[in-house]
Amino acid sequence: MIEIAANNSTLRSWVFVPENSDFPIQNLPFGIFEQKGYKSAGVAIGEMVLDLGGLQSYGFLDGIGLPDKVFEKETLNAFLALGRKMGRRVRNKISELLAEGNIELKNHYDIKSLLIPQKEVKMCMPIQVGDYTDFYSSEQHAYNVGCMFRDPDNALLPNWKYLPVGYHGRASSIIASGVPIHRPKGQQRPNDDEPPVFGPCKLLDFELEMAFITCGENLLGESISTEKAEDYIFGMVLFNDWSARDIQKWEYVPLGPFLAKSFASSVSPWIVTMDALEPFRIPGPQQDPKVLPYLEFEGDKHFDINLEAAIRPEGSGERVVTNSNFKYMYWSMAQQLAHHTVNGCNIKTGDLYGSGTLSGPDPSQFGSMLEISWRGTKPVPMSDGSERKFILDGDTVIMRGYAKQEGIRIGFGEVSTKVLPAL
Amino acid sequence: MIEIAANNSTLRSWVFVPENSDFPIQNLPFGIFEQKGYKSAGVAIGEMVLDLGGLQSYGFLDGIGLPDKVFEKETLNAFLALGRKMGRRVRNKISELLAEGNIELKNHYDIKSLLIPQKEVKMCMPIQVGDYTDFYSSEQHAYNVGCMFRDPDNALLPNWKYLPVGYHGRASSIIASGVPIHRPKGQQRPNDDEPPVFGPCKLLDFELEMAFITCGENLLGESISTEKAEDYIFGMVLFNDWSARDIQKWEYVPLGPFLAKSFASSVSPWIVTMDALEPFRIPGPQQDPKVLPYLEFEGDKHFDINLEAAIRPEGSGERVVTNSNFKYMYWSMAQQLAHHTVNGCNIKTGDLYGSGTLSGPDPSQFGSMLEISWRGTKPVPMSDGSERKFILDGDTVIMRGYAKQEGIRIGFGEVSTKVLPAL
Repeated sequence: MIEIAANNSTLRSWVFVPENSDFPIQNLPFGIFEQKGYKSAGVAIGEMVLDLGGLQSYGFLDGIGLPDKVFEKETLNAFLALGRKMGRRVRNKISELLAEGNIELKNHYDIKSLLIPQKEVKMCMPIQVGDYTDFYSSEQHAYNVGCMFRDPDNALLPNWKYLPVGYHGRASSIIASGVPIHRPKGQQRPNDDEPPVFGPCKLLDFELEMAFITCGENLLGESISTEKAEDYIFGMVLFNDWSARDIQKWEYVPLGPFLAKSFASSVSPWIVTMDALEPFRIPGPQQDPKVLPYLEFEGDKHFDINLEAAIRPEGSGERVVTNSNFKYMYWSMAQQLAHHTVNGCNIKTGDLYGSGTLSGPDPSQFGSMLEISWRGTKPVPMSDGSERKFILDGDTVIMRGYAKQEGIRIGFGEVSTKVLPAL
Repeated sequence: MIEIAANNSTLRSWVFVPENSDFPIQNLPFGIFEQKGYKSAGVAIGEMVLDLGGLQSYGFLDGIGLPDKVFEKETLNAFLALGRKMGRRVRNKISELLAEGNIELKNHYDIKSLLIPQKEVKMCMPIQVGDYTDFYSSEQHAYNVGCMFRDPDNALLPNWKYLPVGYHGRASSIIASGVPIHRPKGQQRPNDDEPPVFGPCKLLDFELEMAFITCGENLLGESISTEKAEDYIFGMVLFNDWSARDIQKWEYVPLGPFLAKSFASSVSPWIVTMDALEPFRIPGPQQDPKVLPYLEFEGDKHFDINLEAAIRPEGSGERVVTNSNFKYMYWSMAQQLAHHTVNGCNIKTGDLYGSGTLSGPDPSQFGSMLEISWRGTKPVPMSDGSERKFILDGDTVIMRGYAKQEGIRIGFGEVSTKVLPAL
């Protein structure tokens, strides 16, 4: 057992960390940054990025069993493939090097090229996504959608409380924060008595989600228990599962969402490790009916992570339109992964698993415009005096998240995406 | 425009090609083979594999602009990324080298290591699959399933003739022919009035499909027209989309098939190029209602490819249980790809796109046991005197396919998969 020394709440760093920064020394999330056309893995500390490729090449990471040049890559996949224990070793070592009182790195002759202001780099996709699965695990969200599309008395379908409903999504169109998207085009049928029409989506929506990223793999045919599941979860990101509601409504029967989702999904660039999130475990909801044995688990598998989504109209200030929390999950990540593999499906390093839209019980906590504007019946005021039922061209949608206790804030940064007109 | 010289029907090879071989000199499909722990790209000719890594290293492929060592890889992705035109140049060159009368390669001192008997090698996954999409494009199959699960008067859902219905599938569990699978476990609800139960799938099924593999990519946000779509389709394989019908029935609403499919899908190892299939174009069905403009196309975009599926019980001979054809597609591959990208979704080299189960109009042409045994009401006799409603442990399912005209047979080999008991 390797202790998570990096979580020591009394630690301070010699690198300046502003108050309320998402990236104190207790966080140390991993990402891929680009500077002058060169990509490398880095760790966020305060307003800086620590270049891990450089750190390794100068020998600071020697002795913990890392393969050569594992950080001088376009993605973190090779590093993640080494597993959670190696991740912990590296994070502990970095914590030691950045801790107040340690001058080993601080006084290194090349520290200026190792520690780079975040504002001088571009953050990239942290991983090459292998497979992407999206779950549907917030009860309030499933209830809201069920109310709108079926009826309140049968809002949840019969399987919903027996298994974590999920579906496969498109991996190729998952993009990093900052990459703009074009409004998708597609078939819609606004009038049920007439043939479908083709054109730009009119009901463009975000979905406020989080996603976990896996490390390691199981053999095809084998399953991962709820007890072992967390060994395969390296960390988490914020996730905006862009959705075209009008395209979705027409296409989704009987095989599920397809083009309504596959045009883009956006992720925040920093992978916050499960180790950093360890202090924020909380119990989940009572599950009734009782789950089948393969979905039972022990201990706290939910996490208390505050989330928000904001809309910034072109040339205007932003307005936060919802405040939710990752704790509004009926199913835990461990249950999701146990369910996903119970049929023998093999997970791989670099897979991404979305939570599903995270809606809390209060309308101020709903996680999509579909729910916030209740299908367009309750427009939302913007900072420039306009209103939104769904997302308009020129809008930027920004999601943020953090966990906090005893003065320690473990943040995710943000995922921010501007919507451009359809091509 | 580079001519497809390799299709010349008068060509014969100096390599022995048995009568009715799937691999005459007019075929030349690409695959990845393993011999003594070493993987390389190869081309099938008669009963032999031509080692492309070796062929390139001896200079036989010089002068056509190939990057160094592009075939000495674990997959064909790097080669496919060069596009259809480069594929054509290589195939034309190989055709020239293998043609009767050409002694350049035939008399090479190391020909014995370049030309290896297929029975001495193991065929592997030809590509690393990026994203996998499965369509649902055979009208008879959609009608059959609709009859069984809804009613014959409303068998096709309203969207079916307006768009090629499809869904995202699991890429990690796509395996090569010859790799056995374990019967999946999962939740089923045999009695609608009782809670679900957990256990091995009882209604294991195959789906007789073909799949196309893409080369090249479009930018996120851009679309590919039906006219350009074929430039992105490198070739095709046979595809067995394994399905657990009891798991599927319980889990699939409202977001589509998930664990009922993700435990495995099997592909044949040789990618038959669209160039080799060029002579087998035929018109597709009249599409009524008229499709939206982005789905319109010119010319023949369907292909006449005979297909069969057989079951071989443990220790017994095989029995062919269906004879179908790839022509039983309502939507062409060009329409599928145009639809897939009309929302700006980006395709990449190495994506795999399944046709959906290919059922012809006659019951002898149905493409799954669900349809062949009509939900288990019409058991199918096996060669050992037993009967099958669905697939049993120990059974091997074998699919084969070929196109043929004027004595030229372009075959796909086979995809063969044995089912082992649940773990």
